Amino acid sequence: MVDILHRIGVTSPPEDVYAALTTVDGLASWWTEETEGDGDVGGVLRFRFEAGGFDMKVLDVRPGELVLWEVIDGPDEWIGTRVRFELSREDGFTIVLFRHEGWKEPVEFMHHCSTKWATFLMSLKNLVETGKGAPAPNDVKIDNWN
Amino acid sequence: MVDILHRIGVTSPPEDVYAALTTVDGLASWWTEETEGDGDVGGVLRFRFEAGGFDMKVLDVRPGELVLWEVIDGPDEWIGTRVRFELSREDGFTIVLFRHEGWKEPVEFMHHCSTKWATFLMSLKNLVETGKGAPAPNDVKIDNWN
Repeated sequence: MVDILHRIGVTSPPEDVYAALTTVDGLASWWTEETEGDGDVGGVLRFRFEAGGFDMKVLDVRPGELVLWEVIDGPDEWIGTRVRFELSREDGFTIVLFRHEGWKEPVEFMHHCSTKWATFLMSLKNLVETGKGAPAPNDVKIDNWN
Repeated sequence: MVDILHRIGVTSPPEDVYAALTTVDGLASWWTEETEGDGDVGGVLRFRFEAGGFDMKVLDVRPGELVLWEVIDGPDEWIGTRVRFELSREDGFTIVLFRHEGWKEPVEFMHHCSTKWATFLMSLKNLVETGKGAPAPNDVKIDNWN
């Protein structure tokens, strides 16, 4: 099992980051405009992109501390993996420790997803700090897979 | 052992990306302005940032195909790890498959470095495509560790 890891710091309170990770409006403003569903525990969030999408079951949420999803539909490589956002406070920043965990193999697609996650997490940071993210379809393009 | 993985695609020929990975001028234009040394096999490249830096021994280079370094000085977690850039051609893009391999543990600093590598690889892409990268000290800041 291999994991994608990232860390960002947001100069805003944890509650603001948490809202951007648990509400449809928040998620649609940094990851993909085509977001619907329910961000509470037991709910399912559906994220759609030009090339497909992901359905996530919400396994755990703790206000200002944790958001944990399991991928229940999407590309084969993603199904059964988990996406974890751990929030903490340090030096006046809300730190987001991110893991997309449980990939079976470090395939080329995982390399692509790692870089995409970084650009989307920077979109999350910009959204919470400035009010403006870069969700799909206006996301940062990184390679020929988009 | 755990690895940081990334993938970018550059709309320029492999030789241009290779030059940005093997010459002091190239490296100084996307990673850190304070770069010196020798990018040929057996040479040592010294990269300096506000908070410290890294010395890399060049283990292997193949024009338009591969650049491989070993970290011989820097933060404890980096020493002995390897940084690998594999170049290939796909859909009119030069694909850079990146791995920073051989971390002992997925420590919080590794999360930070993964996100920083993504922003520096986007700086490499922008440099080669447009002539303008964002090397330190004018790099994209991601968190309280910079």
